[in-house]
Amino acid sequence: MGELELIAAIETLLADRSGRLVRWTGDDAAVTRARPYAVTSIDTLVDGVHFRRATHELRDIGWKAIATALSDLAAMGADAGEAYVSVVLPDDVGAPLELIHGMEELAAETGATIAGGDVVHGPVLVLTVAVTGWADSEEDLVGRDGAQPGDLVGVTGELGASEAGRLLLEAGQAEPAEPIRRHLRPRPRLEAGRALAAAGVTAMIDISDGLATDAQHVAERSHVELRVRLGDLPRPEGVSAEQAATGGDDYELLVTVPPARREAAEAAAPLTWIGEASAGRGLLLLGSDGPVTGLRGYEHP
Amino acid sequence: MGELELIAAIETLLADRSGRLVRWTGDDAAVTRARPYAVTSIDTLVDGVHFRRATHELRDIGWKAIATALSDLAAMGADAGEAYVSVVLPDDVGAPLELIHGMEELAAETGATIAGGDVVHGPVLVLTVAVTGWADSEEDLVGRDGAQPGDLVGVTGELGASEAGRLLLEAGQAEPAEPIRRHLRPRPRLEAGRALAAAGVTAMIDISDGLATDAQHVAERSHVELRVRLGDLPRPEGVSAEQAATGGDDYELLVTVPPARREAAEAAAPLTWIGEASAGRGLLLLGSDGPVTGLRGYEHP
Repeated sequence: MGELELIAAIETLLADRSGRLVRWTGDDAAVTRARPYAVTSIDTLVDGVHFRRATHELRDIGWKAIATALSDLAAMGADAGEAYVSVVLPDDVGAPLELIHGMEELAAETGATIAGGDVVHGPVLVLTVAVTGWADSEEDLVGRDGAQPGDLVGVTGELGASEAGRLLLEAGQAEPAEPIRRHLRPRPRLEAGRALAAAGVTAMIDISDGLATDAQHVAERSHVELRVRLGDLPRPEGVSAEQAATGGDDYELLVTVPPARREAAEAAAPLTWIGEASAGRGLLLLGSDGPVTGLRGYEHP
Repeated sequence: MGELELIAAIETLLADRSGRLVRWTGDDAAVTRARPYAVTSIDTLVDGVHFRRATHELRDIGWKAIATALSDLAAMGADAGEAYVSVVLPDDVGAPLELIHGMEELAAETGATIAGGDVVHGPVLVLTVAVTGWADSEEDLVGRDGAQPGDLVGVTGELGASEAGRLLLEAGQAEPAEPIRRHLRPRPRLEAGRALAAAGVTAMIDISDGLATDAQHVAERSHVELRVRLGDLPRPEGVSAEQAATGGDDYELLVTVPPARREAAEAAAPLTWIGEASAGRGLLLLGSDGPVTGLRGYEHP
């Protein structure tokens, strides 16, 4: 199938869920009616680095590419809008439309619209997704830079499950199914992100590279020290505190919350409190015997 | 250099030219104050397919990635806004910041802002650029679908120069310099695109895959036949009419213009008139002896 035929086949799979699209497939660019603030991120997944075709179905790869990008919108508190997808396709990918099916499955779940894209041939499977989300005011959005000394540190969901799933897949195991599912089909926390932003969290980030790396970003951007109790990290059975701190691709949200807004945040999304912000800078991981050093977020091979 | 250090180094190179950015580097996503209509496109360049590191400097590759994406905004008549760049970086690219320097050179020329990105390691150099442009009303923008029977067909600039430059580079030649420059440093026709849109052209496309392919897109989307006189194609010395019709990567604009707006279009941008739209469908290329079949736009290897 040539690139033009493939693009035509892709276009038949896409659904416009936005109600905002003026032009999309078939023109040089897509045109959308904007809301006051555009929130945009771009993420790339490479075969052998972020997934392996030996262990990941094409539908799962497509899903994950959309999930990774949408998770950045969740971390800002933005509404999902449009996704623009680019695929570098090696000749040995027999059913490239499966990638798009996987993308559309998650787009349908989240209300996102795949509004444009590019398909080119190349030696390795690469998926890049640029997403635009929307907000009506600057105050509806949350960055990484607002944490204050005294804020509580909380996370949604459980950490380390995706990495546990990845290790199971690498070992050729199909059970237990839940961590594998979380690795293959991560769910960006869009609803939680919007609700937490509305509840007045001061900083928010998605945990994509592992808490040990992502909490560090918040600490540095906010000019605070984050003290996180390793023993309090929410994690599934069989995952150690260290694995929960370093495993990547969970796409849960980490937030900092002034004590006065604790109840509002808890009402916005199920949270586990794992630490506090204090004067200083950087991330301090606390084990049962005191500070633990040398833990780093998951680094892709 | 690790990915995080590289991203930090990149951020020091970027300039905010938009005046619209609320958040950009250092957060999960960039935030911009929107104008009423967002115009978005995504394009990917792969080493060995769209450029070759043997013949293309890293700065030229970065420039071209931005040019390719901005050219789609030119073809809509949109103002350049923000670019989001993703780079898959093999270990043997010694000076990856050169890519960003090349991107920033063209961004500075066009008033675009590189507002976000992603850098990941991988086996082959891949650059993906998503660009967002802006417009204040739907009528300021032009698609591929508005050509009417009786419209004139015009193009900006010369065709076939970039492909001539590519062949010179492949042959190891450095002269003549002009076609090589056009291949390495194409200029998206943003000003011409805006002016032509304001002059009331009915359809517009950028010639990236070669006129024989791109004029076909306009014909099909507009449900007309475009009759193009090969002998009238503007081309540099030494380039045949067939090469002008099939060579890619020129990034000139093709427009269709009602006869009553011919003078307004000519005042908007230097145009060469190459044919007419008529009832029917598809592209009819006319040589000195009648219709010419079998010409196709440039296909990347």
